[in-house]
Amino acid sequence: MKLWQKDKASLAAVEQFTVGKDREMDTFLAPFDVLGSMAHITMLESIGLLGAEELTILKQELRNIYQDIEAGNFKLEADVEDIHSQVELLLTRRLGEVGKKIHSGRSRNDQVLVDLKLFLRHELQVMVEEVLALFRLLQQQSEAYKNHLIPGYTHLQIAMPSSFGLWFGAYAESLVDDLTLLQGAYKVVNKNPLGSAAGYGSSFPLDRELTTALLGFDSLNYNVVYAQMGRGKTEKVVAFALSGIAATIAKMAMDACLFMNQNFGFISFPDELTTGSSIMPHKKNPDVWELIRSHGNKLQALPNEIAMMITNLPSGYHRDLQLLKENLFPAFQTLKDCIRMSRLMLENIRIREHILDDDKYQYLFSVEVVNNLVLQGTPFREAYKQVGLDIEQGVFSPAKEVNHTHAGSIGNLCTAQIAAQMDAVVAGFPFDKVDQALEKLLQP
Amino acid sequence: MKLWQKDKASLAAVEQFTVGKDREMDTFLAPFDVLGSMAHITMLESIGLLGAEELTILKQELRNIYQDIEAGNFKLEADVEDIHSQVELLLTRRLGEVGKKIHSGRSRNDQVLVDLKLFLRHELQVMVEEVLALFRLLQQQSEAYKNHLIPGYTHLQIAMPSSFGLWFGAYAESLVDDLTLLQGAYKVVNKNPLGSAAGYGSSFPLDRELTTALLGFDSLNYNVVYAQMGRGKTEKVVAFALSGIAATIAKMAMDACLFMNQNFGFISFPDELTTGSSIMPHKKNPDVWELIRSHGNKLQALPNEIAMMITNLPSGYHRDLQLLKENLFPAFQTLKDCIRMSRLMLENIRIREHILDDDKYQYLFSVEVVNNLVLQGTPFREAYKQVGLDIEQGVFSPAKEVNHTHAGSIGNLCTAQIAAQMDAVVAGFPFDKVDQALEKLLQP
Amino acid sequence: MKLWQKDKASLAAVEQFTVGKDREMDTFLAPFDVLGSMAHITMLESIGLLGAEELTILKQELRNIYQDIEAGNFKLEADVEDIHSQVELLLTRRLGEVGKKIHSGRSRNDQVLVDLKLFLRHELQVMVEEVLALFRLLQQQSEAYKNHLIPGYTHLQIAMPSSFGLWFGAYAESLVDDLTLLQGAYKVVNKNPLGSAAGYGSSFPLDRELTTALLGFDSLNYNVVYAQMGRGKTEKVVAFALSGIAATIAKMAMDACLFMNQNFGFISFPDELTTGSSIMPHKKNPDVWELIRSHGNKLQALPNEIAMMITNLPSGYHRDLQLLKENLFPAFQTLKDCIRMSRLMLENIRIREHILDDDKYQYLFSVEVVNNLVLQGTPFREAYKQVGLDIEQGVFSPAKEVNHTHAGSIGNLCTAQIAAQMDAVVAGFPFDKVDQALEKLLQP
Amino acid sequence: MKLWQKDKASLAAVEQFTVGKDREMDTFLAPFDVLGSMAHITMLESIGLLGAEELTILKQELRNIYQDIEAGNFKLEADVEDIHSQVELLLTRRLGEVGKKIHSGRSRNDQVLVDLKLFLRHELQVMVEEVLALFRLLQQQSEAYKNHLIPGYTHLQIAMPSSFGLWFGAYAESLVDDLTLLQGAYKVVNKNPLGSAAGYGSSFPLDRELTTALLGFDSLNYNVVYAQMGRGKTEKVVAFALSGIAATIAKMAMDACLFMNQNFGFISFPDELTTGSSIMPHKKNPDVWELIRSHGNKLQALPNEIAMMITNLPSGYHRDLQLLKENLFPAFQTLKDCIRMSRLMLENIRIREHILDDDKYQYLFSVEVVNNLVLQGTPFREAYKQVGLDIEQGVFSPAKEVNHTHAGSIGNLCTAQIAAQMDAVVAGFPFDKVDQALEKLLQP
Repeated sequence: MKLWQKDKASLAAVEQFTVGKDREMDTFLAPFDVLGSMAHITMLESIGLLGAEELTILKQELRNIYQDIEAGNFKLEADVEDIHSQVELLLTRRLGEVGKKIHSGRSRNDQVLVDLKLFLRHELQVMVEEVLALFRLLQQQSEAYKNHLIPGYTHLQIAMPSSFGLWFGAYAESLVDDLTLLQGAYKVVNKNPLGSAAGYGSSFPLDRELTTALLGFDSLNYNVVYAQMGRGKTEKVVAFALSGIAATIAKMAMDACLFMNQNFGFISFPDELTTGSSIMPHKKNPDVWELIRSHGNKLQALPNEIAMMITNLPSGYHRDLQLLKENLFPAFQTLKDCIRMSRLMLENIRIREHILDDDKYQYLFSVEVVNNLVLQGTPFREAYKQVGLDIEQGVFSPAKEVNHTHAGSIGNLCTAQIAAQMDAVVAGFPFDKVDQALEKLLQP
Repeated sequence: MKLWQKDKASLAAVEQFTVGKDREMDTFLAPFDVLGSMAHITMLESIGLLGAEELTILKQELRNIYQDIEAGNFKLEADVEDIHSQVELLLTRRLGEVGKKIHSGRSRNDQVLVDLKLFLRHELQVMVEEVLALFRLLQQQSEAYKNHLIPGYTHLQIAMPSSFGLWFGAYAESLVDDLTLLQGAYKVVNKNPLGSAAGYGSSFPLDRELTTALLGFDSLNYNVVYAQMGRGKTEKVVAFALSGIAATIAKMAMDACLFMNQNFGFISFPDELTTGSSIMPHKKNPDVWELIRSHGNKLQALPNEIAMMITNLPSGYHRDLQLLKENLFPAFQTLKDCIRMSRLMLENIRIREHILDDDKYQYLFSVEVVNNLVLQGTPFREAYKQVGLDIEQGVFSPAKEVNHTHAGSIGNLCTAQIAAQMDAVVAGFPFDKVDQALEKLLQP
Repeated sequence: MKLWQKDKASLAAVEQFTVGKDREMDTFLAPFDVLGSMAHITMLESIGLLGAEELTILKQELRNIYQDIEAGNFKLEADVEDIHSQVELLLTRRLGEVGKKIHSGRSRNDQVLVDLKLFLRHELQVMVEEVLALFRLLQQQSEAYKNHLIPGYTHLQIAMPSSFGLWFGAYAESLVDDLTLLQGAYKVVNKNPLGSAAGYGSSFPLDRELTTALLGFDSLNYNVVYAQMGRGKTEKVVAFALSGIAATIAKMAMDACLFMNQNFGFISFPDELTTGSSIMPHKKNPDVWELIRSHGNKLQALPNEIAMMITNLPSGYHRDLQLLKENLFPAFQTLKDCIRMSRLMLENIRIREHILDDDKYQYLFSVEVVNNLVLQGTPFREAYKQVGLDIEQGVFSPAKEVNHTHAGSIGNLCTAQIAAQMDAVVAGFPFDKVDQALEKLLQP
Repeated sequence: MKLWQKDKASLAAVEQFTVGKDREMDTFLAPFDVLGSMAHITMLESIGLLGAEELTILKQELRNIYQDIEAGNFKLEADVEDIHSQVELLLTRRLGEVGKKIHSGRSRNDQVLVDLKLFLRHELQVMVEEVLALFRLLQQQSEAYKNHLIPGYTHLQIAMPSSFGLWFGAYAESLVDDLTLLQGAYKVVNKNPLGSAAGYGSSFPLDRELTTALLGFDSLNYNVVYAQMGRGKTEKVVAFALSGIAATIAKMAMDACLFMNQNFGFISFPDELTTGSSIMPHKKNPDVWELIRSHGNKLQALPNEIAMMITNLPSGYHRDLQLLKENLFPAFQTLKDCIRMSRLMLENIRIREHILDDDKYQYLFSVEVVNNLVLQGTPFREAYKQVGLDIEQGVFSPAKEVNHTHAGSIGNLCTAQIAAQMDAVVAGFPFDKVDQALEKLLQP
């Protein structure tokens, strides 16, 4: 075995391997890194580790960098390893020695942790807004098409009357539960890990409550070992929250593909929102829905991916955690795209009229007939038998009327009540508090 | 191809295949099926579909069945397909025709859904109590061993001083976040699907708000199509909630196995709680921890299994959903066992004294020394360089003292604050309301 | 913290926790444990660690136990921990001290490993036979229905003519690839781990080539550390092999459910093979197919479960591995049931005649018409445009004829060639060699 | 609801959403798309759908494009949707009308399928070579360090003597099984789907055996419906093959991280191959190994992701399949990087001498002592008891000698036999046949 020669090619390969896509991922974190640093140095000054004047000039320069980021004028220089180094480099270049002081009392580990938490918290807030827009649209369509009946299927067999009112409304209500779960994830995210240093705290007398307040966090990850343990765990719970929304719209996309199929033929879309075939001139394919479904299913595999990467790692930081960013960070954009595409499609959906006129759907009404007999006094089991016999003998010919009046049924969609559920969930997010804290932090 | 002969062997095989383990799984649901039926018939009477006297005798008999179940005196008869049929059979056998009336206005689908929700709600409540017991113990041990220092590792390399106070406390705090997430799942569970019938509602004028109140649900799954969509989704979110707790104790188990390893040698357990080897007379193996870890990891794969089984199913009931019970229902017992075993192990853990006396741990204090230099005025980057040089030249010999005072650090564990976080989470569960509703429902 | 009291309840709970379902799982391994022991002691005698007479009486008694197992007359006694202890107990009870000698030169670890390999090898062989039966049936049905045209869909949109000949035949061919992959897993399984002891070998001069030959293994897991590493890895590759077959039949089940749907209406089944509804008298539900699909999807999650349980475990045995048995061992029976149910359904399938007569399917023939124009000299892009115009203007009225002649197309199913592919795969399994070795080992 | 306005922003968003990363992914397929087209047009000429001269000029131009791709001089123009369109565009631009003829008798679906198969086949071949290089190195190190003893652990507890010879050798042998499984995937890949058109074949008299031969495929995906079904399935089996190799090196990385930990201290690496800490001057972190482990675990989640995306899709093409490329295509490079980094690390590994001299390792020899007693005539169970007593009474003081001689043990690593196993696996790949076919196809 040859002795280790520090050959340059190998060292460059190692460098490239360890950095990987991390520089690219760090651009997601840039503004939040600046915010974290502003809170950190404000705290350092409060405990005497930074002079008041030093704080002022550091904050001013960080504010400049923040504005550059917001304006799209910020990027990692070619030989700078990560966002944290880049910010520190800019400060030192512009302000000299004092720039180095922002690193006192923290480690890369808690710096990344707080960046991550701030980033995820922000993305979750944006996601809530996106989901709400889809929710409102679904409710609107539910009301608009509440009298458009369709077959309801169980076992994919024609079962009982349903409606587009129910169909749109079901997916609206699904989003209420999805945001309920997302709120759980948000609460886990919205705790401050800053001050945990490398996962074992610091001998500096850090004031962690102060940074918590400055960054608008609800509380702290108190225990510093637990704060570090939040890396990986946080990503997993956020991924699960995303996967819930993704599952809802993927299921809607599956329904849409089925309803667009010519054997069903319930819905259609303008040509521009469908896709043709290179060999079949008649095709209007639901590519948008198929890609929504596929992205949705891919997102559903994400929590498992994260679990696979962190399972059985002993406590304490491991470099493994770096790679969790790669599929999670872009997932927010992907999910937002899927939601927006869903909205575009749903806004332009065309609903076929009189779907239930087709004879094959008359069996849908068998339960109605059974229930009418019951309401007139026939025991259920006998009414069931009688209708079954009529069907077998081909003499079943029901009135195609639906008289569903109970809560949540065709004739009583409870749109307002579901909206109220959603409002209650949304009210549970402390978005105002967060926005105000960050605004204040950014003020000169 | 032969014509279909209704040969008995094939039909029996079909019967066995379709029933599968479902009878076994249904025993989990038995008491909840009775509760659901009691609420349903109370509502039926209120809308005139059942006489007052009929209600009285049906409720009395259901109460008898409930008590039989509680007393362990209930079982599915050999040729009865499921729990729902068994209850109906008992009622009809004992009360005659009126027994059949409990099925008016509902379908197997919403009956199973409400059973499932009641069962899961109950199990989640029990789980919260189990988790709390583990939490209290971990906090107690954290305080008891707060002065027992251990090395803290990053990258599995000796990094900085940590303590058993931090270690126990970290897992306690982890459970706070786990219950926060579980609460999200609980909220999704705690909505009433009864009245959605086969997923498309009923033409009976069902009073779904009444059954919601009777069963102590917080609200309804209003939209009947969404109510049915909750099947599968509910199981998945509950599985994810369980997987969070499982991940926490699996990680703790990984640490424990490592700390018991002779190269670490931080902890040990009484012989009776370890296992020997059939060929190595010196072995004291951590089998209990290994099995906790393994169960925990298996539980982490459960949400993915459920997702795989329901993904891309169009809306509406499918028989596929039946099989979701098989790994989920026993998971509660498994997780409870793991929690209890963790408690037994942690109660009997033996902590080695003076771990940090070993020379290999002196580098732990390098950050302390750097920070002290900084506090005395040396810029961080220079202090870092100087200590690094001392280490390289073998002249680094730190005082092994730790002066961590900030929130969540070795010297300031914030045990009370973490307990307060946990109390706040637990207060968010409406257990009392639920208990009172069910108690009232069961009263004569 | 109280001192450890060896309280009996706790110890019993520990016992129960560590044993878990392992006794139940061990019944799967029983016959293979005996075979492994027979090979082991034959080898022990060959290296002088057992007398010739001792070997004779031990082998005779093991043969008796094997026959008891085969006859269903064997079970684990109540207080016996596992199959290995039970066999050793029986030997000692019947033969005295010599019974204990079978444990020389091996550990529980390699004993379980060889049991596992023999069990999995056997189950894979049985699975090949089951798959072959399904393959033959699918090919038979493919030929029987080769002239029954159906619409072919892309994007779930009507695309081009297909046939039941293609549909059945596709799933037949899918099984060829599934067995190709299963053969890879079989090869990994079919290597002898016996002699690796606890994962670090033995100071006894074991003749591992002899046990390899006696047990019909193709080769050895040479390196003893790797032999132990095979635990978990072997289960995972076998699970993946099963998941391939499962995916094929789950997809077929999805198609079947869709084709049974009344909007498609391509196939139906005798009433006895479908299921009714408790509230809808007209329902004929495809429960068998839905459960095949659900089991199939559950099996697809199994490799991931196993990966999750073994990932990041350092090399060397861990008790975690015990739990891998629980979902894997029953999976063989589940998959066999699914295959058999698929066969029952496919044998009794009813194919609707003249499906393509329906006007909505005429667009299927647009590619035919385009291609005809091309064959007559029109450039493809122009032919495509012309047919597209006809369709848009509602004047497209094709001859509904299909003239596909190339390999694998409607008119040329290549049934024989696909059968030849399957035969070639099956010929690659050394089943005869294995059967002969075990038969010889069992001879007096 | 507003009428559909073909607003440009929405249409651009739809365009962007449907194309997604596909252009980027297509660059992986570029050379293989050209090869597929060369085979296709050669076949078209043979059945009279292309003139001999047309073939000549088309082939020449495709050869030019291929050389441009190889030279890195090819890229998708800004407004071109995919690689297939780009190639066709170049041909038409350079050759006029004849360029359009390459699309006769095929569809995007089978074109992508054959590109995918050729690409995957190529990548698997490269992967075999990479794995072989790692295998050779591991075997070399195994021989080099065969006398360097280390503790062997079971349950992470000190168990029995092991060696670096065994440790390196185990991972070498693991790769043999990994390539065995990969060979199964290769066989599934190495079948020709070209001619299946959109999944239902073509009315052109395509000669699929000819393209099979031209492209060096082993056989055909005969049934055209199955050929299309191979999309998704192929990706999944290849992902599983990669995950096997990934699991092996991830496990090795876990061991390496543990062995580098100071409590173990078995191995170390040159400073340039480890990483420092921003706050701890003494750190030498195993970042390279951690990232290998993390990438390896991420790859282990990939087959599940693919399964999640294709499960429950009915037969026939769906646009969902497009997204399978995104995590799979870059996975090859990632895995190759991990293998190369593993090699760099293993080449420069430093093994500590005399590890077992430490007193805590003397228990390793307890089995040796037991076995010696057995060889001298003491029954195993008694020998075990006696040594156990010695250990408990602190009088156990073994000779630290290891006399393992059987196949695969410390003293007999069977390096040559394992190499022979590997050679046999590698010989099973038809790389020469494939290379020759493609070379011939590319000749003028």
